[in-house]
Amino acid sequence: VAITLGPNRYGKAEVRLVRVVRDTGTHSLTDLNISVALEGDLAGTHLEGDNSGVLPTDTMKNTVYAFARSHGVGALEDFGLLLAHHFIATQPQINGATITIRGYGWDRLGPHSFQRRGDHTQLAVITVKGDESQVVAGVEGLVLMNTTDSEFHGFAKDRYTTLPETTDRILATEVNARWRYIGSTGDFPAFSAGVSAGVKDTLVEAFRSCYSYSLQQTLYAMAKAVLERHEEIAEIRLALPNKHHYLVDLEPFGLENPGEVFNAGDRPYGLIEGTVTRDDAPPALALVGGAEWFA
Amino acid sequence: VAITLGPNRYGKAEVRLVRVVRDTGTHSLTDLNISVALEGDLAGTHLEGDNSGVLPTDTMKNTVYAFARSHGVGALEDFGLLLAHHFIATQPQINGATITIRGYGWDRLGPHSFQRRGDHTQLAVITVKGDESQVVAGVEGLVLMNTTDSEFHGFAKDRYTTLPETTDRILATEVNARWRYIGSTGDFPAFSAGVSAGVKDTLVEAFRSCYSYSLQQTLYAMAKAVLERHEEIAEIRLALPNKHHYLVDLEPFGLENPGEVFNAGDRPYGLIEGTVTRDDAPPALALVGGAEWFA
Amino acid sequence: VAITLGPNRYGKAEVRLVRVVRDTGTHSLTDLNISVALEGDLAGTHLEGDNSGVLPTDTMKNTVYAFARSHGVGALEDFGLLLAHHFIATQPQINGATITIRGYGWDRLGPHSFQRRGDHTQLAVITVKGDESQVVAGVEGLVLMNTTDSEFHGFAKDRYTTLPETTDRILATEVNARWRYIGSTGDFPAFSAGVSAGVKDTLVEAFRSCYSYSLQQTLYAMAKAVLERHEEIAEIRLALPNKHHYLVDLEPFGLENPGEVFNAGDRPYGLIEGTVTRDDAPPALALVGGAEWFA
Amino acid sequence: VAITLGPNRYGKAEVRLVRVVRDTGTHSLTDLNISVALEGDLAGTHLEGDNSGVLPTDTMKNTVYAFARSHGVGALEDFGLLLAHHFIATQPQINGATITIRGYGWDRLGPHSFQRRGDHTQLAVITVKGDESQVVAGVEGLVLMNTTDSEFHGFAKDRYTTLPETTDRILATEVNARWRYIGSTGDFPAFSAGVSAGVKDTLVEAFRSCYSYSLQQTLYAMAKAVLERHEEIAEIRLALPNKHHYLVDLEPFGLENPGEVFNAGDRPYGLIEGTVTRDDAPPALALVGGAEWFA
Repeated sequence: VAITLGPNRYGKAEVRLVRVVRDTGTHSLTDLNISVALEGDLAGTHLEGDNSGVLPTDTMKNTVYAFARSHGVGALEDFGLLLAHHFIATQPQINGATITIRGYGWDRLGPHSFQRRGDHTQLAVITVKGDESQVVAGVEGLVLMNTTDSEFHGFAKDRYTTLPETTDRILATEVNARWRYIGSTGDFPAFSAGVSAGVKDTLVEAFRSCYSYSLQQTLYAMAKAVLERHEEIAEIRLALPNKHHYLVDLEPFGLENPGEVFNAGDRPYGLIEGTVTRDDAPPALALVGGAEWFA
Repeated sequence: VAITLGPNRYGKAEVRLVRVVRDTGTHSLTDLNISVALEGDLAGTHLEGDNSGVLPTDTMKNTVYAFARSHGVGALEDFGLLLAHHFIATQPQINGATITIRGYGWDRLGPHSFQRRGDHTQLAVITVKGDESQVVAGVEGLVLMNTTDSEFHGFAKDRYTTLPETTDRILATEVNARWRYIGSTGDFPAFSAGVSAGVKDTLVEAFRSCYSYSLQQTLYAMAKAVLERHEEIAEIRLALPNKHHYLVDLEPFGLENPGEVFNAGDRPYGLIEGTVTRDDAPPALALVGGAEWFA
Repeated sequence: VAITLGPNRYGKAEVRLVRVVRDTGTHSLTDLNISVALEGDLAGTHLEGDNSGVLPTDTMKNTVYAFARSHGVGALEDFGLLLAHHFIATQPQINGATITIRGYGWDRLGPHSFQRRGDHTQLAVITVKGDESQVVAGVEGLVLMNTTDSEFHGFAKDRYTTLPETTDRILATEVNARWRYIGSTGDFPAFSAGVSAGVKDTLVEAFRSCYSYSLQQTLYAMAKAVLERHEEIAEIRLALPNKHHYLVDLEPFGLENPGEVFNAGDRPYGLIEGTVTRDDAPPALALVGGAEWFA
Repeated sequence: VAITLGPNRYGKAEVRLVRVVRDTGTHSLTDLNISVALEGDLAGTHLEGDNSGVLPTDTMKNTVYAFARSHGVGALEDFGLLLAHHFIATQPQINGATITIRGYGWDRLGPHSFQRRGDHTQLAVITVKGDESQVVAGVEGLVLMNTTDSEFHGFAKDRYTTLPETTDRILATEVNARWRYIGSTGDFPAFSAGVSAGVKDTLVEAFRSCYSYSLQQTLYAMAKAVLERHEEIAEIRLALPNKHHYLVDLEPFGLENPGEVFNAGDRPYGLIEGTVTRDDAPPALALVGGAEWFA
């Protein structure tokens, strides 16, 4: 029995990049948080401290900034593909790269003035392995609420079940979504066309319009709407915490509470997660260095 | 020499209240985080564990929820005054109350559907002591950026100064503002008229339009604009972290960087704080239980 | 082409449980954060809002508390196995469960008095699918530093490399480790024997004693030490952020800085991740609802 | 009526300093987060953007690092006094300085190896104004729990009171304490003698040994113990959140719960704050730029 090095990766995490375009008097702004992770033949440094195949993570940071200058930053997905291909093309010992980019939105106040939004974070997770490319995009932290049109009843019960059934409750969640684009050759025209922003709008609209009997049903409706509307997408995964709003019992004070006064709970929370897919979707690439039980 | 109990207060912090108005098919929503702090004759419980004068903090929480039902929740300031007066009026041993309310904004998506904003938090700090009332309102977490029209030079230098002077830099800050309304009798018609929201807009506009030679200058311009536009306000205090954006040195890679690629730093950060006041403004009330060196 | 429901799971996240044992005058304390995730035949609720197979997440919370009373809480791993088996055994439509438990340490101050530690969090991730069981344990947030005995040189260089080579630097990291126990039948005597605590000590000692030429080398040394010392463990995965300590340039002030004054950086940071395994280790079970590209 | 600049200050916040002493093979380590705030004649920059009196905050950061090298870092309080006096002595327009220092503890693992503690943060807040000096020290984030010897009953009740009285509950809090040293001339020999660490131990012991009828009573007992034991201290202020542990109702499952199974709540929480003082203590200095209603 021997002890061996298994899946591994390394990189620079959370490079903060603000890119200003100031070619004219009207500036534009991109505000990103970029992480690079590489895999390849890295046994030398692990086993013997031989760093001849280790491009410093500091160099990855420099590359992000230099590329932001020389190539500009358009769609997150395109910038991620550019970076991923660069590291694989130029470092012979590296054969896989995952670039994770989070983007923060700003509203324009004037020609060179901006106010930071905070309603959600945009996401792109680009993986390139040899000739194969995978583009996952997403949103994080998008909080939505329906104050009615949500029921929950008819559920399974056991001796530990005390939850009352309800035909009218608040349904609130923080949408965390990731969708994978079809294609593996690096040809992804969708990004410049703004598909990722459209997916966000589709998710919001599907949440809004779904009369819900469970958060699972809402999840599926949101995911299905995205796949129906966006042919470029192979599958989508949603993680939806059920942000419980507890109806406060006001009877001790001689008051009714017809769905008006709620305590917004912190913990615990329900957590509903699911993937919805086209049945002809090719399988996904694993992220570099992946190990399922670590997630 | 004796050891004595000094300033003190107690209360319930961070009561999370979501109030839905559903009188018609078009619902509305108020999302608040409310803290209650009371002061008065509380020596008994401190010195002897005699709780006869201690209204439980759990009761304060119940009161918040019951009042939200029976009185409704309009302007944060009005709800805070209502709560403060209640505790002083009904608990003879209590003579001061500070109610701190944070409000989270939501955008409407439909008749009963909402999306949480995240661009800033609304604030109200109400203090009532005996017959005197004080209303402070504010905003927190409002992040603004000008990508030009900001210079910084001509500053004091000593042997530890290495900062280069600049005639063009990014100026970014997170606005944390509190303003105090004129008046002390509980007669504050300004709130229902939406003055607090207007102050936020004034701050944003003043930041945007100020050609800046220092963040201090911008601070004063923002504060002055508020006092000039809003007669109801006696003074305003701003805490403006200077969210440094460092121009990345790309020369080692043969690239110029004419104000386009920045590293958004986390720590350290400059912190500029100042109060601007009408010279005839009456002095402020101290918050209950105050002790300056603790803040 | 059809749209279909793919991998999914649901459950209650972050149930906060404090279990006191007070059979004698000397109390003991367990402080846990428990998340339950189940998978199985859940298409009904997703596709049609039919909840007949959905045990409420509220019931999962109740079950955690009831089991804490009736079974007690010993090793995290044992409590996780108990919960996972329960849900699968009693809910016919459920065939997989992952229970994630974080444990917070407390130091004893007296027979019934405690002070919370904050040096690391203990972790257990239990997965049961049908007849197969998997136990992963871990630590999170364990911050270690060597102020010397760390070099970094001989690395790959490209046109974006500016990092100087060094033969003496601070090496600091926050250990996030997960290790998988051998066995799949639910027979894991190791936990009661305290192996997980021993692994933590092994990791600390290996970090301390490793003369390092790269954080990768330290990672491998830490992992190898665990597998050599603990036969019960099939593999271990480490995620080690490189908490950079930047030597401050004091030359402008006429001062040398021989490794004494450092700026502890926040972002970006290097991130080194790797798995080390016994070559005869059986493959790992995927967590329930797993989708690699979502992690 | 005119608009005028009121109290103000500026500085650099959160300078992260790690100072290693490596004179021998056995290294030692100080890990600090330092904020500088100055007040003085700063109207020029606010009103006209005239920065001739503005020492850049970047210079303050440089000064922290340079002083750490040339003077070393011993007690937090001494380092804070050194910095405060420096800025006032060398910048004629500056007449007040508050230096806030947080210190993070590390346990020794070997001659040059350390593990970060996380049980509390050490604090020093130094204020110098002209010839007067004030030293406040403190602890933050120290979490303590007694699993019995805590009662709460006999409290005031009104129509909103539903809390049952109890003769046995968990009492848990996170100690946030600040104490002010006697003296104003800069002569504070206490620090090198380690008084601040002793105060922490006194607080812990007083919490442990107090049979409590209210958290207020415990607060006073803790504060009194410090003043009785430490003659160097003029007053102490404690902010003690009541970290509620809710006894879980297990009756629906046919189980008793004799003080064994608790839900550790997040929000809301009680918050008890109070100052205990020697009756001959001189009044405290306000922090620079202070404005009570902003805290």
